[in-house]
Amino acid sequence: MNQIQLEEMLKAFLLEDIGSKDVTRQSIFPPGQIGKAEFLVKEDGVIAGLDLIRSVYRLLDETIVVDVQVKDGAIVSEGDVIAQAKGPVRHLLTGERLILNLMQRLSGIATLTRRSVKSLNDSTIHICDTRKTTPGLRVLEKYAVRIGGGKNHRFGLDDGDMIKDNHIGVAGSIEAAVAKVREETGHMMQVEVETETEADVIAAVKAGADIIMFDNCSPSEVKERVSLVPDHIVTEASGGITLETLHEYAGTGVDYISLGYLTHSAKALDISLNVSISE
Amino acid sequence: MNQIQLEEMLKAFLLEDIGSKDVTRQSIFPPGQIGKAEFLVKEDGVIAGLDLIRSVYRLLDETIVVDVQVKDGAIVSEGDVIAQAKGPVRHLLTGERLILNLMQRLSGIATLTRRSVKSLNDSTIHICDTRKTTPGLRVLEKYAVRIGGGKNHRFGLDDGDMIKDNHIGVAGSIEAAVAKVREETGHMMQVEVETETEADVIAAVKAGADIIMFDNCSPSEVKERVSLVPDHIVTEASGGITLETLHEYAGTGVDYISLGYLTHSAKALDISLNVSISE
Amino acid sequence: MNQIQLEEMLKAFLLEDIGSKDVTRQSIFPPGQIGKAEFLVKEDGVIAGLDLIRSVYRLLDETIVVDVQVKDGAIVSEGDVIAQAKGPVRHLLTGERLILNLMQRLSGIATLTRRSVKSLNDSTIHICDTRKTTPGLRVLEKYAVRIGGGKNHRFGLDDGDMIKDNHIGVAGSIEAAVAKVREETGHMMQVEVETETEADVIAAVKAGADIIMFDNCSPSEVKERVSLVPDHIVTEASGGITLETLHEYAGTGVDYISLGYLTHSAKALDISLNVSISE
Amino acid sequence: MNQIQLEEMLKAFLLEDIGSKDVTRQSIFPPGQIGKAEFLVKEDGVIAGLDLIRSVYRLLDETIVVDVQVKDGAIVSEGDVIAQAKGPVRHLLTGERLILNLMQRLSGIATLTRRSVKSLNDSTIHICDTRKTTPGLRVLEKYAVRIGGGKNHRFGLDDGDMIKDNHIGVAGSIEAAVAKVREETGHMMQVEVETETEADVIAAVKAGADIIMFDNCSPSEVKERVSLVPDHIVTEASGGITLETLHEYAGTGVDYISLGYLTHSAKALDISLNVSISE
Amino acid sequence: MNQIQLEEMLKAFLLEDIGSKDVTRQSIFPPGQIGKAEFLVKEDGVIAGLDLIRSVYRLLDETIVVDVQVKDGAIVSEGDVIAQAKGPVRHLLTGERLILNLMQRLSGIATLTRRSVKSLNDSTIHICDTRKTTPGLRVLEKYAVRIGGGKNHRFGLDDGDMIKDNHIGVAGSIEAAVAKVREETGHMMQVEVETETEADVIAAVKAGADIIMFDNCSPSEVKERVSLVPDHIVTEASGGITLETLHEYAGTGVDYISLGYLTHSAKALDISLNVSISE
Amino acid sequence: MNQIQLEEMLKAFLLEDIGSKDVTRQSIFPPGQIGKAEFLVKEDGVIAGLDLIRSVYRLLDETIVVDVQVKDGAIVSEGDVIAQAKGPVRHLLTGERLILNLMQRLSGIATLTRRSVKSLNDSTIHICDTRKTTPGLRVLEKYAVRIGGGKNHRFGLDDGDMIKDNHIGVAGSIEAAVAKVREETGHMMQVEVETETEADVIAAVKAGADIIMFDNCSPSEVKERVSLVPDHIVTEASGGITLETLHEYAGTGVDYISLGYLTHSAKALDISLNVSISE
Repeated sequence: MNQIQLEEMLKAFLLEDIGSKDVTRQSIFPPGQIGKAEFLVKEDGVIAGLDLIRSVYRLLDETIVVDVQVKDGAIVSEGDVIAQAKGPVRHLLTGERLILNLMQRLSGIATLTRRSVKSLNDSTIHICDTRKTTPGLRVLEKYAVRIGGGKNHRFGLDDGDMIKDNHIGVAGSIEAAVAKVREETGHMMQVEVETETEADVIAAVKAGADIIMFDNCSPSEVKERVSLVPDHIVTEASGGITLETLHEYAGTGVDYISLGYLTHSAKALDISLNVSISE
Repeated sequence: MNQIQLEEMLKAFLLEDIGSKDVTRQSIFPPGQIGKAEFLVKEDGVIAGLDLIRSVYRLLDETIVVDVQVKDGAIVSEGDVIAQAKGPVRHLLTGERLILNLMQRLSGIATLTRRSVKSLNDSTIHICDTRKTTPGLRVLEKYAVRIGGGKNHRFGLDDGDMIKDNHIGVAGSIEAAVAKVREETGHMMQVEVETETEADVIAAVKAGADIIMFDNCSPSEVKERVSLVPDHIVTEASGGITLETLHEYAGTGVDYISLGYLTHSAKALDISLNVSISE
Repeated sequence: MNQIQLEEMLKAFLLEDIGSKDVTRQSIFPPGQIGKAEFLVKEDGVIAGLDLIRSVYRLLDETIVVDVQVKDGAIVSEGDVIAQAKGPVRHLLTGERLILNLMQRLSGIATLTRRSVKSLNDSTIHICDTRKTTPGLRVLEKYAVRIGGGKNHRFGLDDGDMIKDNHIGVAGSIEAAVAKVREETGHMMQVEVETETEADVIAAVKAGADIIMFDNCSPSEVKERVSLVPDHIVTEASGGITLETLHEYAGTGVDYISLGYLTHSAKALDISLNVSISE
Repeated sequence: MNQIQLEEMLKAFLLEDIGSKDVTRQSIFPPGQIGKAEFLVKEDGVIAGLDLIRSVYRLLDETIVVDVQVKDGAIVSEGDVIAQAKGPVRHLLTGERLILNLMQRLSGIATLTRRSVKSLNDSTIHICDTRKTTPGLRVLEKYAVRIGGGKNHRFGLDDGDMIKDNHIGVAGSIEAAVAKVREETGHMMQVEVETETEADVIAAVKAGADIIMFDNCSPSEVKERVSLVPDHIVTEASGGITLETLHEYAGTGVDYISLGYLTHSAKALDISLNVSISE
Repeated sequence: MNQIQLEEMLKAFLLEDIGSKDVTRQSIFPPGQIGKAEFLVKEDGVIAGLDLIRSVYRLLDETIVVDVQVKDGAIVSEGDVIAQAKGPVRHLLTGERLILNLMQRLSGIATLTRRSVKSLNDSTIHICDTRKTTPGLRVLEKYAVRIGGGKNHRFGLDDGDMIKDNHIGVAGSIEAAVAKVREETGHMMQVEVETETEADVIAAVKAGADIIMFDNCSPSEVKERVSLVPDHIVTEASGGITLETLHEYAGTGVDYISLGYLTHSAKALDISLNVSISE
Repeated sequence: MNQIQLEEMLKAFLLEDIGSKDVTRQSIFPPGQIGKAEFLVKEDGVIAGLDLIRSVYRLLDETIVVDVQVKDGAIVSEGDVIAQAKGPVRHLLTGERLILNLMQRLSGIATLTRRSVKSLNDSTIHICDTRKTTPGLRVLEKYAVRIGGGKNHRFGLDDGDMIKDNHIGVAGSIEAAVAKVREETGHMMQVEVETETEADVIAAVKAGADIIMFDNCSPSEVKERVSLVPDHIVTEASGGITLETLHEYAGTGVDYISLGYLTHSAKALDISLNVSISE
């Protein structure tokens, strides 16, 4: 994570939640009142985003001391205390909602990714994400996918080429489309071609694609198409694969399976904060 | 919606997704190539966020013409075309991912809110949201709740007072806590008190709370506690209520039920974009 | 105050005043030269904004040590030293103008608010501000009103509803206007109705307004109209009330009097900075 | 005015005032409802800031048509209509507060500046402002001073050198201080020296100052000291001059008189907006 | 180019150059005075950045009409008029400096790139840039390299992996370093290995690098090392290659040569603006 | 330098270079691994920008300790170590590219400025810069000119008036143009007039210009024209003067010579960073 970028994001999020002031807490808690906060897991899963506790609290009050019990990626169970923070109560409480909103979402994504990896149960195939992320949170959500054992697909339209149906139609052929794209980009940019048919796959190989994606294919189709692709070209299956059907793709020999649901359908992992006031 | 604020948000989201350039589309589609885009609903639900189509496209290319077939709040079915856009293909495609990522999420929230309202089936009780929203998207997500037939709870820590357990502990009593908060705020600021017991409810009434919340109460408990509160004080039930248990709260006489799941657990509504190239 | 928001404001203000460099001071004062700065009150009043000394200096130089002699809200007299700062002279002087420009204005507002409270001399009525604040300084100016013993009206168009003449005309009636607004908002949002006549007041009561404002009313009119409003509805007098006429409203029984002049006509309180160079 | 800078300022100010939404107006006025707004002067003075009407409304709604009856600098009387705007009522009203808050302040400054020029009644002396402006509004307030017939002193610490007491003390002498500053700056940067005594004035002349300021001097002192300064060096009187004492400085032969009160003590000029709904 | 990003950059650059106002032009040219501006090339070269004329002027004044005579990449000669603009003189002149500062720099880079391509005279080898670009201008400078016939290396630390000496030392071996990096990244991320010796090249091939870079190698060394690398792995020569020695690398069979001087040593191409006032 | 402004610039530059993460370094170097970095000069010149090392590293990691061996303005030779830094290797390397890109450019400008001063070899004439700076870097580049022994011309269109050909044409005469500009500006703003002929010079003197510039004049022309200008008016030669012809202007008696090439044609000074890993 780029800490400078993260800090700007967190400032914006705190501003959204706090607005001009935290009325209630400032009325009730005297500035010097010290308390202890415990982050408590309320359902089993994989934790992601623990560093956010420190990052958010540092923005609110540099005197808050954070103590983290586990590491990102840890498998946790209901009842586990994953972190503690000590410092002025009003700031412990002001940061609560943002930390939980983010950490619950990231842990939810990490948990779902890990569940997907286990369900697939084929260590030769990587699970990866898509661009179907929450606007404004892409960097964080893709981090959570890695924590859950997945890989990241491209981060935006500028760090990888994806040649799709439409592009091929306009360019005239897969070969022409790849050639056009290669003309504009350099060697650090991977070119991926979406294919619908076996003929497409053969054309993409011939066109020199770096990655060939099989769109909306059944496990047996994936298997057949993988066999058409030489080893140094990466293969990817995508489209219509759910947590329920994922395991059927084990053994197909494909290199990557990309799953939109990892980021757009993850349920938040339930985590709560208990704050006690020091005497 | 504040359009100036929305535009700044959308610019930031486009920058996240596009980065320095949309490599593939710029390589393939000549600047003048015109196309038509259809937004197609792929599962039943309630649409929210249609204005985003126009707002996002205006940022990318002012010549794109958007035609919206339904209004936010419309109940749509699989196969419905909800909007069309016509203009340069490269910009139609560049905006695709952001529009869908946002509109699917907002429509998912609106759909879940409407389902909750119908499930509760008591028009004297309002469903409302919480602050458990996605960081950076609170204004949009709360809009979606309204579109689905729900109400909005406070937008941040600065536009409403919530007096909780901790606050009461430190202040000494509910009465003392309310008094302290009133001291700092004016008449435009509602004061809500979270209550655990009947004694708390009675104390909150006496303290002059504007809103009394019953935390983690069963339907019968809610009913009893409502009876302790005079008419001009608003009542709210919150905590542990799910889509499955919601209907049990019909007839309790409470004014509001706040539901965190509306925003943190809504599944995206499946919507897609079909772009065809004009000859 | 939200410190994150405050810091961004102060950075922008420093940039406006310093520009690319503080030419003179950087030419003359060697980086290590230490000095002492005394903030000296030059006319009687109420101090507001002392924290700004620390906040501004921390942005310029973390080694500056600030020592504050009084608290915000202190009643000070000509000649009082309210704070001292010690550190590099060039930074003490670079921050001078911004600190004084802000603290003088805030103290002026606090002083005028306190004078208004004393002049009214009725502890059952609250003095409050309006949205007639300096663009960019609303949060700070409303803070100064609180320090002076006043209350805050709403902070913006989004944290309170005000139904006015025009609205009522378009909606058809006060009742219709209140109903329309209630439809769109939740229980955390107060609805205030501006009334011109006794009939309006009666209609507003019937419509269930949370707050009823008497616009441009004489003290006796206010008194009469207050008597038409049940206890749980808050009343407010507004319009055309000056520091000179304010005391006539004592004893009217109204709950709030809102005064635009607190923020748009406050004279700056004269405060100066004396910097001496350490040998 | 730099329009790009102005637009960013106005966006920030609108965001401060509107927040996430304009609740009341959006509830009541249908999007298409057209109205007419009249800007009405309520006390005699000089108008400054008319362009803000167009600039603010363009940000809210490009269809609003603004018609301005007078120009900045116009002398207006109670009852004058200075501008009209026509367009969607909800946007006419949403922009109202910001336009008035700014235009009233700027017109107040222009009015006070003009009054000062007339009171001084010596066309060989220029009235000018200081850096005692409202943080965030310096560019606008200095514009208002020009509109009222005054001149601008420096805009910030980076576009002019001011050598003061402290600087001279540290540098050892006026000559040394000027030399040090000249070493660091180029020919586009004016060097002004604050003087306390006649000896200072003589030293400043010898040191080659571009501008010599007489600090806290009586009219007769100013007159004497002006006579010590050759013609090509500009002279300025500053410190302790009020609207009441200003006229005593007529005939002193000084070139500039700088007045902090122009910006920190101007009373807002009363202007109001009347909105009528088109049938 | 991402127009939204470009516009934000240009606004910041205009603010840097204009500051609070363009004093001289606003004093002299009445707002309505129309003029014509001609962009005139004053030395032979390749033009890059013509779109900036339109983009900058649109920010200053939407009524300025720009007419471009050539396209980016055009080879121009001294005396060529490459573009004309017509509109208010004051805005034509206000934008002059920024447009020229940027277009001269980009055209200088494009010219130097084209000269390099011609000097190398081997169409099987691509010339490409590095990260040695001007801070704040990377996207624009890399665009200029493409216009001159070059390719782009990675845009930042996040869109490509470069494994260097230090990394290899810490990881223990090239193989270990590549493995570590692959663990963290997905298939859209190219992994490039910097090699010093033939043994390194062999190790990098075995480690499965996507790109192998030969650091500081003579033409004959490059030729030998290329022969060690299978076809599907891209090769790159880098380090110490100048415009003078570049042609010696023709025929080496390497795929890419990266040149820091393209962006850090390009001389601005001389272009000027002639503005004539319309009668 | 204004540190607050500098920090914002550096954050933006780091974001441009790092993007969302520094993939390679984060994969390879464990967070705690400590290293030492040496900044090594690789060609003779003048160093400018040493403070950037500390400023950039502080943004990345506050534990990095920087030790600077020389001061800005030092004359350095190939092989000199100018600074060392110690701290986490991953952050030492992440900041490398930005520090070098900036410091090399600034040192190049300082070196070229010093070479110009020495070549001119007339201590009565100041070398100064222009507005032909890199967009976004003006403040830094002008700092480098000062470090090299030059002076700064104006920083932007708002801190100095330049009356040129076009202005004079429209205003009717030099006298009219100066008068118009003086009307709008105050005494802190220098008015410079560009002259083409001796008649222009005489007119500019009569018009009361503060600075008179001789545009595109030969050394003998400059000498003659200087003799037409009284001592208290500053003179400047500009246009078409190169490093090769500069020495011919020695002895002309002009006060300033402004040189665009100082900032638009400076070659980067070669500096490198060697990082060694601590055991």
